[in-house]
Amino acid sequence: MRDNRLKELFGAGEVVVNAWVSADSPYLAETLSHAGFDSVTVDLQHGMFGLDGAVRLIQAVSAGPAVPLARTPSLDAAVIGKLLDAGAYGIICPAVDDPGQAARFVAMCRYPPAGVRSYGPARANIAQVPGYVARADEQVLTWAMIESRPALDAVDAIAATPGLDGVYVGPNDLALALGAEPGLPVPPPEVDAALARIAEAAHAAGVIAGAFASGPAGARRLAERGYDFVTPGNDMALLRRAAAEGIAAVRGTAVTAAPSGGY
Amino acid sequence: MRDNRLKELFGAGEVVVNAWVSADSPYLAETLSHAGFDSVTVDLQHGMFGLDGAVRLIQAVSAGPAVPLARTPSLDAAVIGKLLDAGAYGIICPAVDDPGQAARFVAMCRYPPAGVRSYGPARANIAQVPGYVARADEQVLTWAMIESRPALDAVDAIAATPGLDGVYVGPNDLALALGAEPGLPVPPPEVDAALARIAEAAHAAGVIAGAFASGPAGARRLAERGYDFVTPGNDMALLRRAAAEGIAAVRGTAVTAAPSGGY
Amino acid sequence: MRDNRLKELFGAGEVVVNAWVSADSPYLAETLSHAGFDSVTVDLQHGMFGLDGAVRLIQAVSAGPAVPLARTPSLDAAVIGKLLDAGAYGIICPAVDDPGQAARFVAMCRYPPAGVRSYGPARANIAQVPGYVARADEQVLTWAMIESRPALDAVDAIAATPGLDGVYVGPNDLALALGAEPGLPVPPPEVDAALARIAEAAHAAGVIAGAFASGPAGARRLAERGYDFVTPGNDMALLRRAAAEGIAAVRGTAVTAAPSGGY
Amino acid sequence: MRDNRLKELFGAGEVVVNAWVSADSPYLAETLSHAGFDSVTVDLQHGMFGLDGAVRLIQAVSAGPAVPLARTPSLDAAVIGKLLDAGAYGIICPAVDDPGQAARFVAMCRYPPAGVRSYGPARANIAQVPGYVARADEQVLTWAMIESRPALDAVDAIAATPGLDGVYVGPNDLALALGAEPGLPVPPPEVDAALARIAEAAHAAGVIAGAFASGPAGARRLAERGYDFVTPGNDMALLRRAAAEGIAAVRGTAVTAAPSGGY
Amino acid sequence: MRDNRLKELFGAGEVVVNAWVSADSPYLAETLSHAGFDSVTVDLQHGMFGLDGAVRLIQAVSAGPAVPLARTPSLDAAVIGKLLDAGAYGIICPAVDDPGQAARFVAMCRYPPAGVRSYGPARANIAQVPGYVARADEQVLTWAMIESRPALDAVDAIAATPGLDGVYVGPNDLALALGAEPGLPVPPPEVDAALARIAEAAHAAGVIAGAFASGPAGARRLAERGYDFVTPGNDMALLRRAAAEGIAAVRGTAVTAAPSGGY
Amino acid sequence: MRDNRLKELFGAGEVVVNAWVSADSPYLAETLSHAGFDSVTVDLQHGMFGLDGAVRLIQAVSAGPAVPLARTPSLDAAVIGKLLDAGAYGIICPAVDDPGQAARFVAMCRYPPAGVRSYGPARANIAQVPGYVARADEQVLTWAMIESRPALDAVDAIAATPGLDGVYVGPNDLALALGAEPGLPVPPPEVDAALARIAEAAHAAGVIAGAFASGPAGARRLAERGYDFVTPGNDMALLRRAAAEGIAAVRGTAVTAAPSGGY
Repeated sequence: MRDNRLKELFGAGEVVVNAWVSADSPYLAETLSHAGFDSVTVDLQHGMFGLDGAVRLIQAVSAGPAVPLARTPSLDAAVIGKLLDAGAYGIICPAVDDPGQAARFVAMCRYPPAGVRSYGPARANIAQVPGYVARADEQVLTWAMIESRPALDAVDAIAATPGLDGVYVGPNDLALALGAEPGLPVPPPEVDAALARIAEAAHAAGVIAGAFASGPAGARRLAERGYDFVTPGNDMALLRRAAAEGIAAVRGTAVTAAPSGGY
Repeated sequence: MRDNRLKELFGAGEVVVNAWVSADSPYLAETLSHAGFDSVTVDLQHGMFGLDGAVRLIQAVSAGPAVPLARTPSLDAAVIGKLLDAGAYGIICPAVDDPGQAARFVAMCRYPPAGVRSYGPARANIAQVPGYVARADEQVLTWAMIESRPALDAVDAIAATPGLDGVYVGPNDLALALGAEPGLPVPPPEVDAALARIAEAAHAAGVIAGAFASGPAGARRLAERGYDFVTPGNDMALLRRAAAEGIAAVRGTAVTAAPSGGY
Repeated sequence: MRDNRLKELFGAGEVVVNAWVSADSPYLAETLSHAGFDSVTVDLQHGMFGLDGAVRLIQAVSAGPAVPLARTPSLDAAVIGKLLDAGAYGIICPAVDDPGQAARFVAMCRYPPAGVRSYGPARANIAQVPGYVARADEQVLTWAMIESRPALDAVDAIAATPGLDGVYVGPNDLALALGAEPGLPVPPPEVDAALARIAEAAHAAGVIAGAFASGPAGARRLAERGYDFVTPGNDMALLRRAAAEGIAAVRGTAVTAAPSGGY
Repeated sequence: MRDNRLKELFGAGEVVVNAWVSADSPYLAETLSHAGFDSVTVDLQHGMFGLDGAVRLIQAVSAGPAVPLARTPSLDAAVIGKLLDAGAYGIICPAVDDPGQAARFVAMCRYPPAGVRSYGPARANIAQVPGYVARADEQVLTWAMIESRPALDAVDAIAATPGLDGVYVGPNDLALALGAEPGLPVPPPEVDAALARIAEAAHAAGVIAGAFASGPAGARRLAERGYDFVTPGNDMALLRRAAAEGIAAVRGTAVTAAPSGGY
Repeated sequence: MRDNRLKELFGAGEVVVNAWVSADSPYLAETLSHAGFDSVTVDLQHGMFGLDGAVRLIQAVSAGPAVPLARTPSLDAAVIGKLLDAGAYGIICPAVDDPGQAARFVAMCRYPPAGVRSYGPARANIAQVPGYVARADEQVLTWAMIESRPALDAVDAIAATPGLDGVYVGPNDLALALGAEPGLPVPPPEVDAALARIAEAAHAAGVIAGAFASGPAGARRLAERGYDFVTPGNDMALLRRAAAEGIAAVRGTAVTAAPSGGY
Repeated sequence: MRDNRLKELFGAGEVVVNAWVSADSPYLAETLSHAGFDSVTVDLQHGMFGLDGAVRLIQAVSAGPAVPLARTPSLDAAVIGKLLDAGAYGIICPAVDDPGQAARFVAMCRYPPAGVRSYGPARANIAQVPGYVARADEQVLTWAMIESRPALDAVDAIAATPGLDGVYVGPNDLALALGAEPGLPVPPPEVDAALARIAEAAHAAGVIAGAFASGPAGARRLAERGYDFVTPGNDMALLRRAAAEGIAAVRGTAVTAAPSGGY
């Protein structure tokens, strides 16, 4: 296991730019890994693949320079363990609503005695370096997603969970939870206020503040507000945006609508 | 998201004929979608594929005219959410044994505030139509499977679950639950009685009565008993039946045995 | 390599009933292998898969009792070699129009000095039995497809090609070649006459007469006319036929149309 | 087989905007089919998949509104036939260097007596419409690629090949053939002059002038020069372009380099 | 469903030698099935595939003479049911820490009334033999993994669980649980003592004692200590070992390091 | 495109040790890439996959430190081009029997004006480095296989083909060509003599002498005879060897038979 380059970047105060894979193509995943992103997250929650696909996508990301991460679909030790065994250097876990869930999430990412991860680092230790157990516990990053009202209310305590490396905002589910509309190019006011609150809580706890954005403009805004870890839309949102521009150029028309930020 | 044509058919009192996919072939799934069925259900519980396959099969069904549905293997929000994100217009959930489970199942199929579905309609909103959240909550159908004695005892209450669209009988598990033999061409008497009871409960509650049958004859019988939503055996049962006929024709022998209804 | 059971059946004068796989599902392929057919042919010419799929399908067929065969898409030593290395016990080659092509086809299926097959029997010798080279040359069957006017004119010479085991009629391409309509439930008169002519030529040369039929009735007719090796439609034709019956049973209507024989 | 909507568009003098798939993801292919393009071409020559992938991608395109096309890797009847059987409504053939090759290419796309296509329209006739043979010969479009000096010299005769529907310029191979650099954002002068020459020849022969461009600007330029059928870069070029913009937005830097037009 | 040959071997007091598949290759799985092992276990917990892959691997194993088994990633009825429906003749379940979990595990492998398995034996009853339900309950073997301190403390009671066929030691997780190092060529003393204790408990309860070893030497040691069911490292460990020997032979160097036992 | 590290190794007079992939597993391919080999060859001729698999395997090899190479199944520009576009840093071409074929092979690996490769370096230039065309022509290695009597007779002229980087012996096909037995642990005398002759010819022409061996001992022998590029058996041969040792260790028996060198 190599050093997780993201740790160095976060340590240096850099804003980490993250890609988001929803399509079942190892070639696409490797392309994003070479496209200038610091990390590429394989999204097993809403991506159009299951665990078989996720393993191949993580492998593909690691053929390029970006750091492979994964979003688990749920707080499930078997799934999180497989994503780590496949070589993810960090896990983003949805719907962490209280500190107890955050603690269980962290434990699923660490070996005993710190946690409950089962030993079997297949691809993760493909280079057969000795001391993998200690290395993995040290290098693997963990993000708890804040995307409900209970999570928002408990965000200080969640961010302070021992061993947790960061929080990550799912603005669309958070919008729904707050009675606002999901999938907008710019977050509605309720979400905007929550974004500020969450970044503050993260930084107070000394952990990473991350979030998904609807596209370049939204991502820029997150960076300006102090987010350390920013995703400027998913793969299909990027593709649709460029497709709309290409089509408009040929037709000599305006780009008709700002495509949404994926999801 | 288009209108779910099944809603119109059920509204018009038509018997909906449903296909059942257990094989991991997108081409087969699309073939069934063009074969005259109103809907095609991708069976993730007993089908010979996992979530990766299910996504591709749902996509393939939607390349033809039939409505894509899916059976989840369990009451699991992550799995149900993925099937919906992949484009299923309805979910059939096994082993719903009491109204509490039925309510949790319905919630997993609806966005907040009505339910708990997480936002990320990847393929489901591939056409990027606005207002997806409300559309989905309105168009997605939900069937609770009645296949145990507790479920049978609670069938009136289950059928009356707010937001539930129908019940669906798994006659083989129900047979086992009632101490009878599963997989017969015609259901044993205990199951037959239960089928009548369940249809009555569904209709009393104003919801769809659906069931799996062992083949054409069993399916016809269900329709005659008032079932609204009928599956005449799965893909491999259909294939084996036609294979047996083809072989018998060449050999000049009788079709040796009535093949079972899949499963 | 096991004994090719088809050789025994042909030796005993049995009519061999063959299945035809066009769908990319190993589970479907194995289902057909257990469905009573003597052999199952993986169709790389018109099947909805490439070589990756063909390898997996041949493997799946050999998990059941039927003998795995393959149709190559063309007279190409690399493709035929791969199908044999994957474990096909016989090759059906389309569009063999003259004895020279027939001889080249046979050579592609045999090792030097008899032929030009390259050594590398990966799955074909997965049991690592010694003497594979001689076994394979002895057990692998070869069928040249007769499906054009030149082929029809040269059928006696083609059938007499040293080492060729049989001819196989593609009635649809032959229909097109003869100016008739392809895909009919019963072959048009021109094709019918050609079928008689080809069987005669095969038997005169002491080789197997094989043909594809549009369904059970057509297959029965072939058997009655002396064909030794008969395919009663492909997988999707069988499935569509049974689907039409299932739907008609539920709806209480007649089966509207005789589905065609696949392709 | 539906009507090929491209024929209507070309008839109406519209500029057809075409997408280009190089990634092995059915979800991505269907996303492009819903993104506003008139057609989506599955590139089997330089795309990162083989025939197994191409079949699934063509199927995925046809789940959306765009017309599925395919580029064959070579003038090979088995491959072209498979792409058509999988449901492509048009074939783009590389490196057609003289009228003889153009005629052979057209023949591979037509059934006898007009051509040599073998009968077996698996997915292509999944709806089992009668009269497929005549429909297919009428609806399938054929483009010969002009990408060498001999092709350029023979472009008038190639464009006049009976049954050929259009020519298509591969500007990168043409650049190499003319001693210029491939992959530039704007074509070098030699290629530019050839583009003018080829459009003129196509229009003189009454056939479609098509070309691949390096991106939106190049595509606009083609449309302005009278090209009827224009591809504004491939999928990965579009994705990289949008990725570069997203990253630059977060980092507050300029988009460092104009990404190339794919390939 | 055939007789489970392992039952005969265990009955005869033979040491069963088991292979362990972590790679997503049906060809590799079938190769191991022909390589002399009595059984081949498809590892869904740490193997580099999900359920889609597991189904194909179980199918591939059953194309050879070895008995297909599977390790589930967790105590999950939906996953265990799918592995059994796919044709596994036995299930190894990780992290069974008390008799209650052991009883639930056994129930997931048996049909009612003995258990809770859902009916739908797709591939498992591909031969459509009658009486599958009773056969399956009789033939399917169940192993509870002992790999934590609570499990070790409760091993006698776990081993005595009605219907459980055996225990299976995961030495690496057990090492972590006992504060020792995982993945060593020879187990550390704490694990060694536990291995003795577990075999004793198994034999006292009259059930099978099974374990995973780090390689041939470790496996030999297990057999000498009375283990009935022994896995001499996983597929990639075997491959790496032979690769190291091959490289050393060419380079004329010593085999630099004893590769670990997989995982 | 990175520098091809093999060029440096050959320049330094090192013996390059090469792995050989016949199984369709990206995880296995990457495992071999990390196992100490200098290069890993994806064998599209006899490997159990087609082009779809080959692309994924080449990608997987490049996720580890070894250099990815590929064996094409035939002298086919479309196939060789795809393998190069997928990222192979060298091509091994079977059955090159005369200098004309060798020249055509080399041309298929080079861009105009030196050759005929078509431009579209999808994965090969995934890092979008400028000047790819010149880099690729400089870095891609080419090996012509000597495996027939005509090839042996023409070996001096073949080895002297401008632009060819080496010859590679296929000892099994060569054995068949010379009337000897293929697949032996040690090559028969006729092959042995040919091996000496071929190395001499290669070195006289200043090109690389490469060969496939049946296992470690055979590979060692090749190195001692001056071969520069040596393959100690394929993946499945290595696996079977280690499996036989593991089984023998448990059973306390001798390793019954020297497994062959793959193929």
